[in-house]
Amino acid sequence: MTGDARIGIVGIGLIGGSLALALRQGGHRGELVGYDFSVPADVLKGHFVDRVSDSAAALASQCDIVVLATPVCASLALLDEIASLCLPRTVLTDVGSTKQAFADTARRVLNRDNGVTLSVVPGHPIAGSEKSGIDSARADLFRGNKVVLTPLPGGDMQATDAVAALWEKTGARVTRMDPAAHDALFAATSHLPHMVAYALINAVFDFGYDHPARQYSAGGLRDFTRIARSDPVMWRDICLSNRENLMEVIAGFEASLGKLRALVASEDGEALTEFFERSKAYCRRMDLENDA
Amino acid sequence: MTGDARIGIVGIGLIGGSLALALRQGGHRGELVGYDFSVPADVLKGHFVDRVSDSAAALASQCDIVVLATPVCASLALLDEIASLCLPRTVLTDVGSTKQAFADTARRVLNRDNGVTLSVVPGHPIAGSEKSGIDSARADLFRGNKVVLTPLPGGDMQATDAVAALWEKTGARVTRMDPAAHDALFAATSHLPHMVAYALINAVFDFGYDHPARQYSAGGLRDFTRIARSDPVMWRDICLSNRENLMEVIAGFEASLGKLRALVASEDGEALTEFFERSKAYCRRMDLENDA
Repeated sequence: MTGDARIGIVGIGLIGGSLALALRQGGHRGELVGYDFSVPADVLKGHFVDRVSDSAAALASQCDIVVLATPVCASLALLDEIASLCLPRTVLTDVGSTKQAFADTARRVLNRDNGVTLSVVPGHPIAGSEKSGIDSARADLFRGNKVVLTPLPGGDMQATDAVAALWEKTGARVTRMDPAAHDALFAATSHLPHMVAYALINAVFDFGYDHPARQYSAGGLRDFTRIARSDPVMWRDICLSNRENLMEVIAGFEASLGKLRALVASEDGEALTEFFERSKAYCRRMDLENDA
Repeated sequence: MTGDARIGIVGIGLIGGSLALALRQGGHRGELVGYDFSVPADVLKGHFVDRVSDSAAALASQCDIVVLATPVCASLALLDEIASLCLPRTVLTDVGSTKQAFADTARRVLNRDNGVTLSVVPGHPIAGSEKSGIDSARADLFRGNKVVLTPLPGGDMQATDAVAALWEKTGARVTRMDPAAHDALFAATSHLPHMVAYALINAVFDFGYDHPARQYSAGGLRDFTRIARSDPVMWRDICLSNRENLMEVIAGFEASLGKLRALVASEDGEALTEFFERSKAYCRRMDLENDA
């Protein structure tokens, strides 16, 4: 089906734009339709998509597969708004960094609208967190990266396969996961690191090391500035939609830092070395896994 | 003087080894002498230095310029041990990431040993924090990077110029700073980011996301693993020798993260966006300064 499917993408930023470019490069034959409230139609048409819709609702009523490539909270609202407008047997997916909230909204919408034959397959491409916007879009963004799908319990298996096939055309490797497990895992491995980086950059700004910090930032701060510039609205929505997991991992991190602070305070050289050795060993193991 | 000076390097790891390679490549004509308790002489001789000493003390008694390229606490002990053995008019410098403790020890040693004509010029090359060991040494490690010298009050200006000339041969840009100001600045821009990264990696390890975290680490954790594997002994010594500044910046960071945690807890979307926007703007300003 997906080879000739008409695919509609709502939100042509880094992710939506890259998906459009990757699908063309990956040999997708069906029409690509796009909608973005903030990008002029003449920018989208030709280079990114074949046709531009006037609204998300208009797009939904015309496409076999609808991809909501918007920040999480916008995607929740859009799903609610367009579900009843979709064609019969439409498959709808999203690209949000949290999955439980989208899955919950999908279940509510599908139960509410009797007669709707829409299938919803929540998805999360793991790519490109620090850049945003259509100017950063590129056809190879997903190549070799993972896309996690979190199918609804009792959901349509064919719909899940269609979304998996769509992402595989971009060169991504598709895996499946439970939405709750997804949100807990990414709270630790992605959302927490971002919160820590944002808090660090703000702290250094507060210290007043304004000019000198920038001159000497090679010494460590630099590694944080890549992720501490990620799209603020995207990250606001991640915080709002993964609040409980985030609170838990922030507390865990605070405990870890508190332990380290106590070792510094008590000048416990041996325990400091052990703390750093443990971290180093874990980093090395991550390398080995990633290289494998 | 430095063109023909006999230069002795104690500790041939990443920094000491790179300095030896860079001095040869930079056209230094004088003899290079090395000592490292853990590297076999046949590895050092030829490729890195012209001659290998049996001990730091033997090296000190033969060289015009002595570079202690060891972790901070080892350098403090070595300075104490070898000061009285140095040649008249020897210039001694170090490469430690903290400078007040080394400056204090230098003052104490110079006041204690009457008749010693040694000049001490504390130094800190800003380069290569995550790798360590002689295998990572390379001639261009310092090229284009800064080296901070923190001359002692009333110290010998010619000695400072000699150390500056030595580093300029490696392609580094030499700046001067007060040791207290140095330690406060680097606590914020380098030492704090490292503590935060170490604490984060240990926290994720504690969460038990062992295998999956490694598989999905592209989502943010990855940026922390570069610095959270830096040499544990080096970082133990930084903690021990910059304790007060470090406690202060950790407290500042904890306040910043606490503020962010409160915004997540209260689901304050507007304030979250502002928090992230502020960080993003600061990161961009750092780019502009660094590119300039």
